[in-house]
Amino acid sequence: MEDSVISSREEAAFEAGIKLGALYHQFTCTPISLATLESVEKAMEESVSLQPFVTSVRVKIDREKVKSSLNEFGYCELDGDMLDVRLTSQVDRATVTAKLSYDNELEYPLMKIVSIDDER
Amino acid sequence: MEDSVISSREEAAFEAGIKLGALYHQFTCTPISLATLESVEKAMEESVSLQPFVTSVRVKIDREKVKSSLNEFGYCELDGDMLDVRLTSQVDRATVTAKLSYDNELEYPLMKIVSIDDER
Amino acid sequence: MEDSVISSREEAAFEAGIKLGALYHQFTCTPISLATLESVEKAMEESVSLQPFVTSVRVKIDREKVKSSLNEFGYCELDGDMLDVRLTSQVDRATVTAKLSYDNELEYPLMKIVSIDDER
Amino acid sequence: MEDSVISSREEAAFEAGIKLGALYHQFTCTPISLATLESVEKAMEESVSLQPFVTSVRVKIDREKVKSSLNEFGYCELDGDMLDVRLTSQVDRATVTAKLSYDNELEYPLMKIVSIDDER
Repeated sequence: MEDSVISSREEAAFEAGIKLGALYHQFTCTPISLATLESVEKAMEESVSLQPFVTSVRVKIDREKVKSSLNEFGYCELDGDMLDVRLTSQVDRATVTAKLSYDNELEYPLMKIVSIDDER
Repeated sequence: MEDSVISSREEAAFEAGIKLGALYHQFTCTPISLATLESVEKAMEESVSLQPFVTSVRVKIDREKVKSSLNEFGYCELDGDMLDVRLTSQVDRATVTAKLSYDNELEYPLMKIVSIDDER
Repeated sequence: MEDSVISSREEAAFEAGIKLGALYHQFTCTPISLATLESVEKAMEESVSLQPFVTSVRVKIDREKVKSSLNEFGYCELDGDMLDVRLTSQVDRATVTAKLSYDNELEYPLMKIVSIDDER
Repeated sequence: MEDSVISSREEAAFEAGIKLGALYHQFTCTPISLATLESVEKAMEESVSLQPFVTSVRVKIDREKVKSSLNEFGYCELDGDMLDVRLTSQVDRATVTAKLSYDNELEYPLMKIVSIDDER
């Protein structure tokens, strides 16, 4: 059964996905070090905040993983495994909270819907 | 009201968003010409097809826009405005069809859910 | 005639090219606005500074071009045309100053060696 | 001593660097599998070939490294460590051959000038 009536919850979930996918592929592989990762976190947060339907975003880069990945020139590339991102998107009255974080079992940076808040 | 029960439709919408966001930011700015855009379309389609929950994807790059954007060296960079993408994602019995295409009114490459098909 | 003796000047020119090419393709297409471009400039500068052989780098994003490119959501994507970058690389006693800036005649963001300084 | 007379050899070295830096940051992190890496190799080669001063390019992705990096969904992301690239750039009569390949000692994907050929 086709149901072309798309809910605000579904729209908000779609928008949250877009932003996490975009963020990931825009910024991974950027050269970083312990001294510079704060400015990369900030640039990532601001870049996502600009986009429509985003109401909040927080980006954390795992210091320990950065430290253990430094090459002999003292930096490494931002890897998906280092990222911990939490964002909310809103469409009408539906708010989706989603996150990107490393899943130790899957050994994979996993994007996931945390919750959907639907004020009715 | 928080509703932490997330439906398959919402999950599939989220997954479709992830893939479109990722595709966009992975491949825009790639140097292309009329002679090479087919191999870029193919690489884009294959890259998306590999990812979980994707059941189909079709990527078209607008030949006319490429032609009119060529620089004096005979190539241009892949711009979001040139992209026409249609993909389906599936989670359980929910299938989301989504697209990325240039919206002439918004003057913006828009990502949108086309339909959600929910076999019940 | 093959001449496998590669000078420090040539090495430094090669390194300057690597950094400009990397910077360009890492950061173009990032969503930016007038309010956020400083943090992107900073992230770009820091990311380049980390890399071997770089002795200085300055990144400027053209405010006017950003302003005239804003979409209806109030942001735009960082375009190569908006970038003005100047960096120096050093290998032994050779220092190369290179830049990336928009060439109005070619209508193209051009990368160019400005000068090579060779302390002898 | 500033020497603003820049030789064709230096220019060609600069151009080779630009292309390797661009290639690396444009394509790393692309999702790939054993079944799709040929189309990615082809897209990378074609994208570089389009750019000014490039006379040849060959891209190889290490099958063994891809195989051992596959996640549980059967794909991985293109990592700089997997790349083996050889390209030549030409400015006037100077031809630079440069490569990107994994350096086992540095544990680093290294870009290097292989030779400069200067027909005189």
